[in-house]
Amino acid sequence: LQDGTLPEAKRMLNALHPSEIANLLESFPPAQRKVLWELVDEEIDGEVLLQVNDEVRGGLIREMDERELLAATSGMDMDDLADFMQDLPRTLTGEILHSLDNQNRQRLEAVLAYPEDSAGGLMNTDTVTVRPDVSLDVVFRYLRMRGEMPELTDHLFVVSRFDHFLGVLRVSDLLTRDPAGRVEDLLITEAVVIPAEMSDRDVARMFEDRDLISAPVLDSRGRLIGRITIDDVVDVIRDEAEQSILSMAGLGEEEDLFAPVWSSTRRRAGWLGLNLVTALLAAYVIGLFEATIQEVVALAVLMPVVASMGGIAGTQTLALVIRALALGQIATRNTRALLLKELGIGLLNGLLWAAVLAGVALVWFGRPTIGVIIAAAMTINLGTAAASGVLVPLILKRFGIDPALAGGVILTTVTDIVGFTAFLGLATLFLL
Amino acid sequence: LQDGTLPEAKRMLNALHPSEIANLLESFPPAQRKVLWELVDEEIDGEVLLQVNDEVRGGLIREMDERELLAATSGMDMDDLADFMQDLPRTLTGEILHSLDNQNRQRLEAVLAYPEDSAGGLMNTDTVTVRPDVSLDVVFRYLRMRGEMPELTDHLFVVSRFDHFLGVLRVSDLLTRDPAGRVEDLLITEAVVIPAEMSDRDVARMFEDRDLISAPVLDSRGRLIGRITIDDVVDVIRDEAEQSILSMAGLGEEEDLFAPVWSSTRRRAGWLGLNLVTALLAAYVIGLFEATIQEVVALAVLMPVVASMGGIAGTQTLALVIRALALGQIATRNTRALLLKELGIGLLNGLLWAAVLAGVALVWFGRPTIGVIIAAAMTINLGTAAASGVLVPLILKRFGIDPALAGGVILTTVTDIVGFTAFLGLATLFLL
Repeated sequence: LQDGTLPEAKRMLNALHPSEIANLLESFPPAQRKVLWELVDEEIDGEVLLQVNDEVRGGLIREMDERELLAATSGMDMDDLADFMQDLPRTLTGEILHSLDNQNRQRLEAVLAYPEDSAGGLMNTDTVTVRPDVSLDVVFRYLRMRGEMPELTDHLFVVSRFDHFLGVLRVSDLLTRDPAGRVEDLLITEAVVIPAEMSDRDVARMFEDRDLISAPVLDSRGRLIGRITIDDVVDVIRDEAEQSILSMAGLGEEEDLFAPVWSSTRRRAGWLGLNLVTALLAAYVIGLFEATIQEVVALAVLMPVVASMGGIAGTQTLALVIRALALGQIATRNTRALLLKELGIGLLNGLLWAAVLAGVALVWFGRPTIGVIIAAAMTINLGTAAASGVLVPLILKRFGIDPALAGGVILTTVTDIVGFTAFLGLATLFLL
Repeated sequence: LQDGTLPEAKRMLNALHPSEIANLLESFPPAQRKVLWELVDEEIDGEVLLQVNDEVRGGLIREMDERELLAATSGMDMDDLADFMQDLPRTLTGEILHSLDNQNRQRLEAVLAYPEDSAGGLMNTDTVTVRPDVSLDVVFRYLRMRGEMPELTDHLFVVSRFDHFLGVLRVSDLLTRDPAGRVEDLLITEAVVIPAEMSDRDVARMFEDRDLISAPVLDSRGRLIGRITIDDVVDVIRDEAEQSILSMAGLGEEEDLFAPVWSSTRRRAGWLGLNLVTALLAAYVIGLFEATIQEVVALAVLMPVVASMGGIAGTQTLALVIRALALGQIATRNTRALLLKELGIGLLNGLLWAAVLAGVALVWFGRPTIGVIIAAAMTINLGTAAASGVLVPLILKRFGIDPALAGGVILTTVTDIVGFTAFLGLATLFLL
């Protein structure tokens, strides 16, 4: 890019799909990102802005004037526009509402009435509805008159005169059945419907399980207010997946790869500070055994091994349990069986590696008692790790805390403290 | 379940969607799972088997006789059948191939000719094709004669007489345009096409970026051989996400929540053994400074703090870089900028928490030199952590190793060794 001529770069850039441009923008540091953004054609500004992550979007929006922003919003779907408006300066939101026609304004307000992470916030309002008492031929005539179909239309929605949802008519039935037949004869009433209050994660799970393309969204009184399509659901699934990876490291989902150093430092400082507190807690535990360490320095050499093995074993259990919780596979009925199974694995692996470690310690320091003590401590700590790996996420979930976020910190704190206490405590009892 | 009567339980179970039954089966320990599986209606056995994870599926298949297995495969899509056959005993695969008609056998063989994790292995062969030179009315008559449409059909594929792919006809155009018009006038030639060799992850990325429902799969000579639909892609995305969470803990993607204790122990033992080696490496480093620790026991108390803070800070950078690598956002051109940014964050946070820790150490042990030494070691280690967080995954990727799997182990080994060396080394120089 730096070498090529500007018009050439501009041509190449705008030949890309908006999602590719978005990806490219995210991969440049802010200064170059700004230059690149200037080169993007104004007509696709809106589509690109919808594809970049929140933090990058905020930065790009700050580069744009009001006219450009207004232009970018034209043609957006109502669900996208609703999301987008939350990033815009307040003065502009009023102007955008004014620029919409009555129908679209009502639709936008319907979407804005629900939280962003609910079915209502995810839905679009571009539904194609038909009445049950007409023939397929009438439906065909209506569609041809209408001209365009919203993307991802695999069903038409059948509603009563008062917008009450009755069921769906499959587009494939429309295409393959006798056009003289009536809609009500092909009406599928047991179609999946989504209450507007459902969380976006539950919506994603339902789409995934039922292989849906689109599903109607109903308000609390059973009226059709919109539909959710698979493309928005795929974004939810991807976000959820990224979030759990990043949140295990204490990061937010929308972290920009090239966020300014200062704001990233502040954002990560809290997590490091929390971990400093837990590390000092472990240090305090070690401090209780200062006299023992003074006697037998070998203990200081070996003690991190016991703690770290506990952390690793516990993290394995934790990862398994976090996934099972996300899939809704853990309930009171199977917690006990799961705990027993993980304890079994922890103790077996504890005994195995305890034996190996005891051998190493014996050869290294030539004191059999140290070998026995470290083996016992290791077995205790791997058992504790297994129990914590099951119980910590369950308890966190009970208190409404995301286990992927806080689980790792709490687990390693437990295994550090138990590991140090068991090892140094046993040594104090049997070595001094 | 245990309390209710059996017929009642059976009725309730089979009222569930196959994906819900699959989820339920996964959440039961093997003995109860077996009982539950007996209760599932034979007609939905196949659908349920396709939804459970590989390990659970293997267990359920072992419970079934040949007749039940053959019955379960009838009616499966060819892509599902191709996956499923890999879990069946060899004797049955021949029988299944025999039971298919000629057309379906050819289709199945086409899918089996490609690796499971490629577009060819993911594709289905139930394409609806039309010729370019017919009118929409002819297409309608053909579809009505054909009767059923494959699920998720948003496009018909337009092919030449020799099966060469020409483009797509949108179903929505079919519905809204004049039926006297010809297919070639509505033909979209710039539709996304997928080469059969493309990896399933690239396919998923493309579906996600372009909001696709279905896309044609072409062989190397440009002939239409199948299509991929969004429901299979959603499974790929979900698997990929689960895999990266589990693989960071050294677990396989298909780990059964209730795998037998003995086989789980063996599977996890390798990971723990690897971590024991790295922990012993860190212990060896500490051992080099035994004499120093003997002099100043406070060092043993504080040294895990330096190492653990390095591990946490490095993991934050690592998570960010692994995500960016997955999104294809890191290239030679921006590595240097990323490294400088992360180093900046690491050093700033290093200085901040070094100051806090120095204060704590001073108050705790009353020796200013220890405070200064731990602050210096912490800053060095957080800088190292930042550099490793960027470089370790990049190097692993260069060597074709999954950074999510091995990144964490290598990173914490580096931060442990650097942390202990810096802290104890500086102490040896300045305290003795």
